[in-house]
Amino acid sequence: MMDILVFLIFLGATFAAGATGAMFPPGHWYERLEKPPWTPPNWMFPVAWTSLYLLMSFAGARVAGVDGSGFAMAFWAAQIALNTLWTPVFFGLRRLKQAVPIMALLWVAVAGCMVTHWQIDTLAGLAFVPYLAWVTVAGALNISVAARNPNVEPVALQDQP
Amino acid sequence: MMDILVFLIFLGATFAAGATGAMFPPGHWYERLEKPPWTPPNWMFPVAWTSLYLLMSFAGARVAGVDGSGFAMAFWAAQIALNTLWTPVFFGLRRLKQAVPIMALLWVAVAGCMVTHWQIDTLAGLAFVPYLAWVTVAGALNISVAARNPNVEPVALQDQP
Repeated sequence: MMDILVFLIFLGATFAAGATGAMFPPGHWYERLEKPPWTPPNWMFPVAWTSLYLLMSFAGARVAGVDGSGFAMAFWAAQIALNTLWTPVFFGLRRLKQAVPIMALLWVAVAGCMVTHWQIDTLAGLAFVPYLAWVTVAGALNISVAARNPNVEPVALQDQP
Repeated sequence: MMDILVFLIFLGATFAAGATGAMFPPGHWYERLEKPPWTPPNWMFPVAWTSLYLLMSFAGARVAGVDGSGFAMAFWAAQIALNTLWTPVFFGLRRLKQAVPIMALLWVAVAGCMVTHWQIDTLAGLAFVPYLAWVTVAGALNISVAARNPNVEPVALQDQP
């Protein structure tokens, strides 16, 4: 039921999202931010994202091309675009508050993925459960960090020489 | 044959990609870059992208959920993720050369979209023709600008206070 080539193209889409983590790295700036005590350790982020990228590509490949998968595929596209957008806004522009609605929309898109994939294929729906859990934690972390660091200056691109 | 709600979710995905244009604006830095004489005027970029976002959402909604649309949907997801990635790398990090392979992968994903959508629905395939033409121009422009401005300094996020 899963086409390996379709899986690999979905994985390519997640690679574009994942590349933001390497191109907009947290670095010293993130280290110095005030963070809540339940902040996951740094090593957990790439491990979680790699696992989630594999799971979402697996789910997409299970469901893509199945009759009636229109909503599932539209939500899948929306979540990967929002996922790609969040990192440059948070770590590139350091717009902590502007990143919150992006994360909120991502949460909605992932919830939409979970429900619509589940309707077609139980395994595909289950594959989105850890993603939704992680985005819930990441969203709470984004909100908490934005609240604890009200004086963070966004990167002003227009002031760059 | 086209579900308006599916169309709107795809359009939401393109909104995430389009938001990069507002959040990472070209500004004075881009004005001062050496550009080839055939560079499209500034006003054309938002007009082109808005039209293309509507067309690609239309195409996606025509094809999504149709039996056998797996490759079309995987390519659709890949193109919107790459589309979202390109702007922050070029205008945010000012990594003109690193943006070229992203644009090349985007070109491949859009070509993949055109072929696979066309196989299912002629109108959907046709809707990708202007997108492929525009990405061809944008890719040539990226290559030309990178070659004409070899001394552009990337934005060093780690040096930001």
